[in-house]
Amino acid sequence: MSQSLFYRLVSCQLRFLQTPTRTFSSTLSIRAAAKRNATMATIATKTGQVVERFVLESLLRRRLFYFPSFEVYGGVSGLYDYGPPGCALQANIVDLWRKHFVLEEDMLEVDTTMLTPHEVLKTSGHVDKFADWMCKDPKTGEIFRADHLVEEVLEARLKGDKEARGQKVEVDQEKEAKKKKVKDTKAVKLDDAVVTEYEELLAKIDNYDGDELGQLIVKYDIRNPKTDGNLLPPVPFNLMFQTTIGPSSNTPGYLRPETAQGQFLAFQKLLEFNQQQMPFASAAIGKSFRNEISPRAGLLRVREFLMAEIEHFVDPEGGKKHHRFEEVKNMELSLLDRSIQLSGSTRTEKMTIGKAVSTGLVDNETLGYFLARIQRFLLKLGIDQSKLRFRQHMANEMAHYATDCWDAELQTSYGWIECVGCADRSCGDLTVHRNRTGAPLCVRESRAEPLQIEEWQINLDKKKFGPRFKKDGKTVEAAIDALSQDLREKLALDLEKDGRIEINIEGVSTGKVELEKGLIKIEKRTRVEHTREYTPHVIEPSFGIGRILYSLIEHVYWSRPDDEARGILSFPPAVAPTKVLLVPLSNHESFGPLVQRVMMKLRRAGISNRVDDSSASIGKRYSRNDELGTPFGITVDFQSVKDNTFTLRDRDTTKQVRASEDEILKAIKLLVDGEETWEDVRKRLPEFTGQEVD
Amino acid sequence: MSQSLFYRLVSCQLRFLQTPTRTFSSTLSIRAAAKRNATMATIATKTGQVVERFVLESLLRRRLFYFPSFEVYGGVSGLYDYGPPGCALQANIVDLWRKHFVLEEDMLEVDTTMLTPHEVLKTSGHVDKFADWMCKDPKTGEIFRADHLVEEVLEARLKGDKEARGQKVEVDQEKEAKKKKVKDTKAVKLDDAVVTEYEELLAKIDNYDGDELGQLIVKYDIRNPKTDGNLLPPVPFNLMFQTTIGPSSNTPGYLRPETAQGQFLAFQKLLEFNQQQMPFASAAIGKSFRNEISPRAGLLRVREFLMAEIEHFVDPEGGKKHHRFEEVKNMELSLLDRSIQLSGSTRTEKMTIGKAVSTGLVDNETLGYFLARIQRFLLKLGIDQSKLRFRQHMANEMAHYATDCWDAELQTSYGWIECVGCADRSCGDLTVHRNRTGAPLCVRESRAEPLQIEEWQINLDKKKFGPRFKKDGKTVEAAIDALSQDLREKLALDLEKDGRIEINIEGVSTGKVELEKGLIKIEKRTRVEHTREYTPHVIEPSFGIGRILYSLIEHVYWSRPDDEARGILSFPPAVAPTKVLLVPLSNHESFGPLVQRVMMKLRRAGISNRVDDSSASIGKRYSRNDELGTPFGITVDFQSVKDNTFTLRDRDTTKQVRASEDEILKAIKLLVDGEETWEDVRKRLPEFTGQEVD
Repeated sequence: MSQSLFYRLVSCQLRFLQTPTRTFSSTLSIRAAAKRNATMATIATKTGQVVERFVLESLLRRRLFYFPSFEVYGGVSGLYDYGPPGCALQANIVDLWRKHFVLEEDMLEVDTTMLTPHEVLKTSGHVDKFADWMCKDPKTGEIFRADHLVEEVLEARLKGDKEARGQKVEVDQEKEAKKKKVKDTKAVKLDDAVVTEYEELLAKIDNYDGDELGQLIVKYDIRNPKTDGNLLPPVPFNLMFQTTIGPSSNTPGYLRPETAQGQFLAFQKLLEFNQQQMPFASAAIGKSFRNEISPRAGLLRVREFLMAEIEHFVDPEGGKKHHRFEEVKNMELSLLDRSIQLSGSTRTEKMTIGKAVSTGLVDNETLGYFLARIQRFLLKLGIDQSKLRFRQHMANEMAHYATDCWDAELQTSYGWIECVGCADRSCGDLTVHRNRTGAPLCVRESRAEPLQIEEWQINLDKKKFGPRFKKDGKTVEAAIDALSQDLREKLALDLEKDGRIEINIEGVSTGKVELEKGLIKIEKRTRVEHTREYTPHVIEPSFGIGRILYSLIEHVYWSRPDDEARGILSFPPAVAPTKVLLVPLSNHESFGPLVQRVMMKLRRAGISNRVDDSSASIGKRYSRNDELGTPFGITVDFQSVKDNTFTLRDRDTTKQVRASEDEILKAIKLLVDGEETWEDVRKRLPEFTGQEVD
Repeated sequence: MSQSLFYRLVSCQLRFLQTPTRTFSSTLSIRAAAKRNATMATIATKTGQVVERFVLESLLRRRLFYFPSFEVYGGVSGLYDYGPPGCALQANIVDLWRKHFVLEEDMLEVDTTMLTPHEVLKTSGHVDKFADWMCKDPKTGEIFRADHLVEEVLEARLKGDKEARGQKVEVDQEKEAKKKKVKDTKAVKLDDAVVTEYEELLAKIDNYDGDELGQLIVKYDIRNPKTDGNLLPPVPFNLMFQTTIGPSSNTPGYLRPETAQGQFLAFQKLLEFNQQQMPFASAAIGKSFRNEISPRAGLLRVREFLMAEIEHFVDPEGGKKHHRFEEVKNMELSLLDRSIQLSGSTRTEKMTIGKAVSTGLVDNETLGYFLARIQRFLLKLGIDQSKLRFRQHMANEMAHYATDCWDAELQTSYGWIECVGCADRSCGDLTVHRNRTGAPLCVRESRAEPLQIEEWQINLDKKKFGPRFKKDGKTVEAAIDALSQDLREKLALDLEKDGRIEINIEGVSTGKVELEKGLIKIEKRTRVEHTREYTPHVIEPSFGIGRILYSLIEHVYWSRPDDEARGILSFPPAVAPTKVLLVPLSNHESFGPLVQRVMMKLRRAGISNRVDDSSASIGKRYSRNDELGTPFGITVDFQSVKDNTFTLRDRDTTKQVRASEDEILKAIKLLVDGEETWEDVRKRLPEFTGQEVD
């Protein structure tokens, strides 16, 4: 290890240890984002209807997108299972992610284990810092997440105040309240000043640490809402699921809280696999875990979740340029930067990523490149661009070593939700693991031109040194080795002048040592470095697939103005759980063989489809599939039996065309591959208006 | 609940509770299979070379297929990470699985959580029965898996005996021994009778329970091989990873040992999603966990593994027919049935699945259909048919309620390995969960014809009954309700004859009760049932993806006779991690744009590819990619710059053709989609012999 690198590592590590709190980009509170959004709970569909969350949730349960796990056993909060449509939607999102990132950028995908030994997460900081604050009621044994409790109690008081003032309480808030700890609100009017105080406090509820939350609980007399009992002061609760690996109890382990650590530990092997070429990116898709104290907000805060993470390793020298930045530089993003947030505003600014990087708002090209690629990915999925913004982290939100971090946030009925984090984590992670294990998690490359380094070097006369310091020898030598260049220069002058120097050294009995000329020599010399060694920096785009999936559902959800009771999920064809619904007009026996044949042909083309030959009306069957988000429907009728033509229905417009089997199948293939739109197909093929189908 | 069903449930549950051991089909010992294979450790490649496992393992590590997790922290046994080729191979196997089963059979795929509350796995039997036996050395604290220890010590003694007799010990056994607990063997000759005794014992080592293992340890004086210290008697060690869900310690949970339970619990919802139509199948792909006492055998016995499981729910009435059985009935399988195993043989018999089902060897059509489909899937992957057999479970290997079970076993250098289990689990799982929770995990359907049931019904005169039996009333009533039809008939005659009857009843003070005419009436009456209610039976094909992946690698591994040092992995194109290698002849600047263009075109067609523009020779670069299993290579040379033609190389034959860019890309697409073979391409396009490429 070169000496200069050693200093960097030590200083890095010291900073790490000194940092009082470490935040974890992938686990930011969703409430923070929600607070920053003044229009929470009133989000509109593309046709301008208000998204009524309970109506949507009922649709999602009815159509089995997802449901609480272990429901027949009473359920476990924060755990959800995906049913067939949710599972297919998730698989399609993952598939698109893999194509958009891994295949397109030649990333090295790995699959690392979830079980992780203690030591690894101790080093990464998770054992000590990955925690929320909890309060216990000593009488009932109930446990509350401290910040949530303060928030809910104060919100209930504000609601009671509104009631006392005769103001209207929003319906959605009522619904929310039902899920909360605070069941009853009392109509008690508060002083205007208290209302303001509460509101200000709620806006920054995520910034309080345990002590401060404890003080708030005392100051505002916050108790167990059910029993009115006093609570113990907040204590930290580590959010990792702990277990034991193997039969003996001396190998504690955890379920990983992120996929990132496995990728960092594989760095050296991946670099070699990549034939030592930098930069490169690794990627991983897999479940991570977070033992929430009291999960809420459906799929947005769960205990087991699918993540897709990229670690792009880059040389910190040369400004972190990206060779494909040109391709994206004109893309416009909605940015909510740090300074605007500090001013108390949530106004976003539209700006090309080229400008954002060139003005220094976004730290570097590589970070900017990924922000643009993230936006393109989200739009491909069907995310509504007007409900997407990139929010820059405040300094206290980032890990101390991070250079810059932006979250892609999506607007939902829960407020603005962080769905993708994109951080420049600098060399922090590789450095701590390297320091702990000694593994060379770094890059070594020959320099085109050898580097000449002028530096103050120290030589000790070992023959005299050993006998003089005896058992202190090693301590003294290490302390001398660690002297900075500045100090060496000063000491060299002192030694020249006085013939002796004195150095303070911890760990020797006298606390300092005296060294004279002849025993020590300090000289400026030139050293030549032929290889360069550096710890790469890491740009980390980190995707919460479940959050994206839920937000996407809200974004594509709407209903027809003439039939608001029935919902439609307008997934783009590539993402839709099922692509085609096959509907025989009735259960007449002549339809069966045609349905089978078309089904087999679609299957062979890799196009997922389902047959609905139930006895419900055609219209009912189609509307069931509108709720499932199936973009296309083929009707098999008596005309089909005669001339082998079929009608093709578009979910969003409910318009139909009629054409031969081959034409219809070809159109579907082009639509699903994204090579034609419905408008293209409608222009090419004759319209059909014969049946009632919506 | 109909009465007849109630009896079935009760009797099912009783049998369950009485069964002393329950085996778990997906977790069968791989050693059992290995034992049954006399030719362990000598397996040949398709070209007849012996598979040297350490050579293959070195290739797999070098090419980063997989590697021990957390290696820079010293590793954790039984945990492996997949590097880019292993990860892509796994994704391709999963993709093929999804197409072959889920899409082809319209299965309902679900994604359920790994975290599972205690109660669910208590009901399923895992909390009580999913365990191995372990022995502790009280002095050192070391823990041994009891059956492994007995096996290893006796094997070492047999080896020592061979040495003492001057017999050759196989090389591979030497290598194996290095990984084991027993480091040194002593050349001590044993009596011939003892050798036979040891050999017989080893052949059935998996059949011993804890007490029996304890007796063997005493009888054969088996001690800690390192210290020669005595061991404590074997105790059960539960193989599930335990954790706590949420902040309070009263919600214990486990990481699931199989994906099946999540599917059973969702049965009711899935039936509804399927519009109440039976039969149907659910499917799940996901990680499961098993906290091995001392993992070994690489990827074959790990603590965290990917499974793909199907639960096919079927009406038990009507012989479990399958509507697509016709399509597979002529497929030939190698079967190793129960009776042959009992006779001590491992000779397989080739038989069509049609015959196997019609003769009753395989219990029913649905089970047979899936065995055939499993074989077809494995062959698609590239499994060598001569190294595939289906082994029927012995009666004591199955869960007590299972009807029949066959494992697809693959032959590897570790012996015959269970890679897919296919069991008819009858109604066992749904029944226990239904009994525990009361949830209607069953099917209710209207009968086309109402069912007339003649049965003996009992009526009690409640007015007299209550005062007579007081607090025993409920117990007596329940006992009477539970009387069988046969007994009722007998009692009716007795009552008619004697005017009174006596019934033995546990739980009442006298142990029996007397009942007279007037208090009890027993009559034969006709009941009409309009709906039929039944608990479906489950056929469960369960795939260990990691085991299949490893076995596949052994099956496709070989080396060219003229260059045995370099390996080749002949994956079929659909499964190969990367499809195409792009190789510019040198780093001449004119090649760059061509490589880029071809790469982009392949990417757009969804064909994974990698560029190798390192300075190694063409031959070296190709042989690197033979080891990665990349089926095709495109060379870009000076001729390409001139006329836009490229050479296309086939991995297995090393033959090349040369054609225009469009022709080459089209050929690759057809090859990867499986629509053409290399022989087809070679016939169509002109051969090229210009370069040295192997």
